[in-house]
Amino acid sequence: MEPKGDIALIGLAVMGQNLILNMADHGYTVVAFNRTVSKVDEFLNDQAKGHDKVLGAHSIEEMVRLLKKPRKIMLMVKAGKPVDEFIETLLPHLEPGDLIIDGGNSHFPDTIRRTKYLEGKGLLYIGTGVSGGEEGARHGPSIMPGGSAKAWPLVKDIFQSIAAKTPDGEPCCDWVGDDGAGHYVKMTHNGIEYGDMQLICEAYQLMKEGLGMSNQEMHEAFAEWNEGELDSYLIEITRDILAHQENGEYTVDKILDTAGQKGTGKWTGVSSLDLGIPVTLIGEAVYARCLSAMKDERVAASKILTGPDCKFTGEKKAFVEDIRQALLASKIVSYAQGFMLMREASKEYKWKLNYGAVAMMWRGGCIIRSAFLGKIKAAFDRKPDLRNLLLDEYFHGVIDRCQPSWRRVVRSAVEMGVPGPAFTTALAFYDGYRSERLPANLLQAQRDYFGAHTYERIDKPRGQYFHTNWTGRGGTVASGTYNA
Amino acid sequence: MEPKGDIALIGLAVMGQNLILNMADHGYTVVAFNRTVSKVDEFLNDQAKGHDKVLGAHSIEEMVRLLKKPRKIMLMVKAGKPVDEFIETLLPHLEPGDLIIDGGNSHFPDTIRRTKYLEGKGLLYIGTGVSGGEEGARHGPSIMPGGSAKAWPLVKDIFQSIAAKTPDGEPCCDWVGDDGAGHYVKMTHNGIEYGDMQLICEAYQLMKEGLGMSNQEMHEAFAEWNEGELDSYLIEITRDILAHQENGEYTVDKILDTAGQKGTGKWTGVSSLDLGIPVTLIGEAVYARCLSAMKDERVAASKILTGPDCKFTGEKKAFVEDIRQALLASKIVSYAQGFMLMREASKEYKWKLNYGAVAMMWRGGCIIRSAFLGKIKAAFDRKPDLRNLLLDEYFHGVIDRCQPSWRRVVRSAVEMGVPGPAFTTALAFYDGYRSERLPANLLQAQRDYFGAHTYERIDKPRGQYFHTNWTGRGGTVASGTYNA
Repeated sequence: MEPKGDIALIGLAVMGQNLILNMADHGYTVVAFNRTVSKVDEFLNDQAKGHDKVLGAHSIEEMVRLLKKPRKIMLMVKAGKPVDEFIETLLPHLEPGDLIIDGGNSHFPDTIRRTKYLEGKGLLYIGTGVSGGEEGARHGPSIMPGGSAKAWPLVKDIFQSIAAKTPDGEPCCDWVGDDGAGHYVKMTHNGIEYGDMQLICEAYQLMKEGLGMSNQEMHEAFAEWNEGELDSYLIEITRDILAHQENGEYTVDKILDTAGQKGTGKWTGVSSLDLGIPVTLIGEAVYARCLSAMKDERVAASKILTGPDCKFTGEKKAFVEDIRQALLASKIVSYAQGFMLMREASKEYKWKLNYGAVAMMWRGGCIIRSAFLGKIKAAFDRKPDLRNLLLDEYFHGVIDRCQPSWRRVVRSAVEMGVPGPAFTTALAFYDGYRSERLPANLLQAQRDYFGAHTYERIDKPRGQYFHTNWTGRGGTVASGTYNA
Repeated sequence: MEPKGDIALIGLAVMGQNLILNMADHGYTVVAFNRTVSKVDEFLNDQAKGHDKVLGAHSIEEMVRLLKKPRKIMLMVKAGKPVDEFIETLLPHLEPGDLIIDGGNSHFPDTIRRTKYLEGKGLLYIGTGVSGGEEGARHGPSIMPGGSAKAWPLVKDIFQSIAAKTPDGEPCCDWVGDDGAGHYVKMTHNGIEYGDMQLICEAYQLMKEGLGMSNQEMHEAFAEWNEGELDSYLIEITRDILAHQENGEYTVDKILDTAGQKGTGKWTGVSSLDLGIPVTLIGEAVYARCLSAMKDERVAASKILTGPDCKFTGEKKAFVEDIRQALLASKIVSYAQGFMLMREASKEYKWKLNYGAVAMMWRGGCIIRSAFLGKIKAAFDRKPDLRNLLLDEYFHGVIDRCQPSWRRVVRSAVEMGVPGPAFTTALAFYDGYRSERLPANLLQAQRDYFGAHTYERIDKPRGQYFHTNWTGRGGTVASGTYNA
């Protein structure tokens, strides 16, 4: 019997199942496999029932036998050890030119390592970001593949056909770059997602605690926002969440205010520190989740620590519009920081990322999909080597327009004692980024004072280092090998 | 000839030289060695001239021969590979019970690894933080040793005699804990140092840009601050720096405003992300250095991006006092975060850190030494299991008192467009920490909506997870293995 499978997919959790059904809908024959084999039949008899393009395999051997060559096998398993284990399990069954695809949220250094490892054995490897949650996987996710460049033609048609499409009909999937590039871009996507969610949460808290708005009123505000510049998936679901009721009570009010963070948001923060790029908004968003998780400690502290006695007295409707503009301006800063990070990573890891293509991949399908990303795509279309989103004429204009509202909102949050770490760090970054002169001259003087670390001067060429004997005592030995 | 050396020190950069002279002054016979051997004689003929307690060694063999047993050899070499290389070089010359001490800024996981490695060979190992810059090393540094507990009695007398002393005469050196504990505490010290320096820089920028104060006026303000609650080494040197002139011009104005960051500040940020502790102020301080390093980009942006047209109109002297109080309150938050981090690390790495002892070690000698740290020591003396510095009655009282000024300063910075990322993040953290309820309930709803990640409820016991079918569509499969 001639093998019929175009691609195999291992891992039948919700994302894996939905990707299989999506591929089958687009005419591809998909072989489904799962480590716990009973799930294969459950899937065939339940969600995949009636889909004759979905084949079940009950062993690795059977799965491999059902695949056309070169074989394409996609893993949708937990990131980390399971990926390495499956690679080892698959290896004896594959031959040169076959392709393994990891569609999980793997850490990009692992993907760099695995690409090298498998290419060393004559195989091909792709590590791809897949975003969009269960709905996205089923009806059109954003797909961000990187790895062996030779593997791209093998999956381009499948991936681009199942991917989401932009309003212009372009697929939200393109080749990202070598080895870990796809997973890096997906990681950054998730970091930005952390930031977007935090900004929405701060807007929500300002409306709720600062303005005393009801869920219904907030639902209406988000519904209105979703019709304009903030039109996006996360605003849309926030609108829906705020209206959702169970037994006559608002669901959102019953949910515990503790969020986890252990994955891609953290990795984005670590990478930004490694590369020396000030991705402050994502950093604050990750920390905000950490703080939310300290629920018991916060409850105890709330009974001891005091806040200001200041209530909002202005015009409520106008302030909601201020919040909208503060969110928009902060969001611009967050994306500017995210693209700064990718630019540095591209340099460091030699990926030659195409930023317009990244914006296009995020335009639809994924969690951060938005009209806003269309504007980013347009900015990079206008100027492919755009150094920073903040310098693009469109975004610069938006910030000019939003700036008074943004400052009013931060000021009010500070006066009322409502925490807004992402709004405020975005503004501090903006004010720092547009500062020709920051106070780091004093900092360099301090470092030279206590550690003889030397400094550069504004009246001498860069790259010349000077040391001042600040105290009149002490030596002239510069500190070469030791950082105090 | 009977060996006379009490301890050997390898690495004759400024810190190493000064530690040797300090030990010799306290009656210890020190064997000096350096990889580039010519430096040994230079040192003996220059800085160490006339110190008969300093012996020079011109080879590892000679150095080892000159040491009493068990031998104690301290490395003051560049962190990283040089430490491993010297350990390998030393190993053939040592015998069980001998001790290697690494006094550089090693990353604590390396120290954990090396302690294990050398203990496995029957040797002892100490990784110790040494802070205080060149002056500290010469006249009394803060010393934070961790590693093989059995090694502590071998060096306790030497270390405590050369260490700085608190105003009460206690040595700023105590045993920190197993394996990497000493270097972890030193790393946190350096992270806090990043934060302290950033806070001072923000105060300086507000005075300079916001109030238009001269160097002389700022010098006077810092001189005054150093007489009160902010009495500390970093405030003191800032006072001196602001007054320092060369050829009739202020030195500080000639220094380029770009700072580096690659070491311990970054590691503190990474560790906080790994452990999930919101050390936001150090994070912002590290990022502020990153942003300062983008000098060319900032200069370009300063010509394009606009700020508010708002000048300070209030009473200058009162606002300087506001800034002082804002700095003090922010500093309390920063130290509270640093101790939160150490508490979590102590749990994670099983170190049983003594927080009062840590405060005492930092009280004198090191870069962050201050009267403030005496207050922290007192807080842990009052309540050794104090959960958070913010909850201590003294610090809580200071924040109560400073809060109106703190909010005024942040508000003014925002209105004038002067960046204050550390002041603002400290305040946002404070407001978040004292919030019984944060908006993470909405965030959890979003995660459950798009990724079926489930949530806990306020009306159900913790540890029970719920999923809502928000759309009325979609499946009921919870996401077990995939994070969107």
